[in-house]
Amino acid sequence: MSELRRDPIIGRWNIIETETPAGADAFDVDPHAPSGGKCPFCYGNEPLTPPEIYVVRPPGTAPNSAGWKLRVVPNKFPALKIEGDLGRRGLGVFDMCNGVGAHEVIIETPDHQRQMADLSIEELAGVIKAFQVRSLDLRGDRRLKYTLIFKNFGLTAGASLEHSHSQLIALPIVPKRVQEELRGSQRYFEFKDRCPYCDLVSQEVQEDERLLAENRSFLACCPFMSNFPFEIWILPKEHRADFAQIGPDAVTDFARILKETLLRMRVSLSDPSYNFIIHTAPIEPREREEYHWHLELIPKLTKIAGFEWGTGFYINPTPPELAARLLREATLPA
Amino acid sequence: MSELRRDPIIGRWNIIETETPAGADAFDVDPHAPSGGKCPFCYGNEPLTPPEIYVVRPPGTAPNSAGWKLRVVPNKFPALKIEGDLGRRGLGVFDMCNGVGAHEVIIETPDHQRQMADLSIEELAGVIKAFQVRSLDLRGDRRLKYTLIFKNFGLTAGASLEHSHSQLIALPIVPKRVQEELRGSQRYFEFKDRCPYCDLVSQEVQEDERLLAENRSFLACCPFMSNFPFEIWILPKEHRADFAQIGPDAVTDFARILKETLLRMRVSLSDPSYNFIIHTAPIEPREREEYHWHLELIPKLTKIAGFEWGTGFYINPTPPELAARLLREATLPA
Repeated sequence: MSELRRDPIIGRWNIIETETPAGADAFDVDPHAPSGGKCPFCYGNEPLTPPEIYVVRPPGTAPNSAGWKLRVVPNKFPALKIEGDLGRRGLGVFDMCNGVGAHEVIIETPDHQRQMADLSIEELAGVIKAFQVRSLDLRGDRRLKYTLIFKNFGLTAGASLEHSHSQLIALPIVPKRVQEELRGSQRYFEFKDRCPYCDLVSQEVQEDERLLAENRSFLACCPFMSNFPFEIWILPKEHRADFAQIGPDAVTDFARILKETLLRMRVSLSDPSYNFIIHTAPIEPREREEYHWHLELIPKLTKIAGFEWGTGFYINPTPPELAARLLREATLPA
Repeated sequence: MSELRRDPIIGRWNIIETETPAGADAFDVDPHAPSGGKCPFCYGNEPLTPPEIYVVRPPGTAPNSAGWKLRVVPNKFPALKIEGDLGRRGLGVFDMCNGVGAHEVIIETPDHQRQMADLSIEELAGVIKAFQVRSLDLRGDRRLKYTLIFKNFGLTAGASLEHSHSQLIALPIVPKRVQEELRGSQRYFEFKDRCPYCDLVSQEVQEDERLLAENRSFLACCPFMSNFPFEIWILPKEHRADFAQIGPDAVTDFARILKETLLRMRVSLSDPSYNFIIHTAPIEPREREEYHWHLELIPKLTKIAGFEWGTGFYINPTPPELAARLLREATLPA
């Protein structure tokens, strides 16, 4: 089991791998290709993953055999494990607890060759539905406080397998980054009596300078204060703090705008590596007047260096107005 | 001039390059070598940099000509510029100001082949002295609130030139990361009436499990809650918030432990890319009972991915106890 250890000054909890620690030889200086051989996410290799915990498969096919459309399985090399007690304890100035949590992999398609952007709207809606179902299910475990859904695509974005997949990690602590968003939006709400994200949505629609896609329920924009070049946020137009309460129509609209956004990014930036993260409210309280779930998408174009580590600020060489225009003008495949 | 734009929720200020913006073609997917041709930091190429603002050179040699031992020059492609007004203003939900500040480069040696770890104690003390002199000088500008000193070494750590250099950026805003440290250490001080860093130093010395080097004035350790594998902190044993008030003896002791630490890291990890950052108090008030300057050194071994962006937590595969042992046991060149 890993350990969660807390920074006594800024309150960050890190996950330290104490069970199977990596020595000095574990790190390659050069990026390396994912290991060859059998892909554990392809048909016929289901025994290479832990047993499925959610699946879309035709009736009559056996669990953990070929024929499925989408599978969710526990991560074989989890950052956190579901068994055991939290065991919160102090160690002098430091604090720690056991690495309790869930770490699941959403295998988005059986087809090794297709990226998320290549999925049909229906398939992509199935992936979003899987995010929702797994989020709701994990709420039954009272030890867990937050569910993070994210995707790493490409080597430089940290993906270790190329077969299209996303990940879900449920944590026993509300993460630092989420607490910052909650505190910041609470402060804004106390001052203005409005959700800051709702205000941001209104302003981006009104200025119409940083939008790149829009439909009935969502918009995609390069936000005014973008941390990274070509950073994209997808926000629901209607105020809602909790992603997991998304309705069936919104699932389809979300799939549509996500596909369009991924395609625009792929065309504009020559198929970059990327990360996306669904920012949503903690498990309790899930209804919040001041918070607004959304997706943040970061194409991996720049490096984090001393300035960024030292300040928490980013130097972004591409104004979001320019990024949005280039993304909007990209010619999508027919 | 660039723009500083503020995140309305979490309060992060990013630097957006609006003067010479980078389009979609500006980003290579693959790492590329620094551009060939003349190195602007070598003897004879002084006209390729802006004029020197601090220099160590023998008497009788002309400014901005060969013969120097160490030069500080303004960055030719600065993130922030010293001219102009801050011009703080709002734009609907957003806030912004002009990119006012200083961005300087410390050229540590005229020798293109030598890394910082190869410098003599005397040369390294000269570099530290340059950090101090430039920090003190910039305090005269009342627009500036914080001075960040950092080094990027190697391509994957974001260095664009291989000739050994460090950087200084003075900012019109106290950075988010520094504010977090100040707030966190204030909270600790209110509760305990002690500086948290002093407590950390005591505990690391007492446990003696994560130390890798120590001398009269400093210790180097892999801290208990390390964000990254083989992360190293160098802390002064004596309480002091402001790096720029370091005394002459401490400069030499700092040079000694920094050199030993860089050598241990180079041997243990096969000459990795790295970033280091000097964490120090804001310009005013510079004396603080609860804050303690230190250096944080991060060898670039892992990638930042969706989990880290979404949580602000890090997954560290190498327990600091193991990292410190490997660094301590490294056989240094005679």
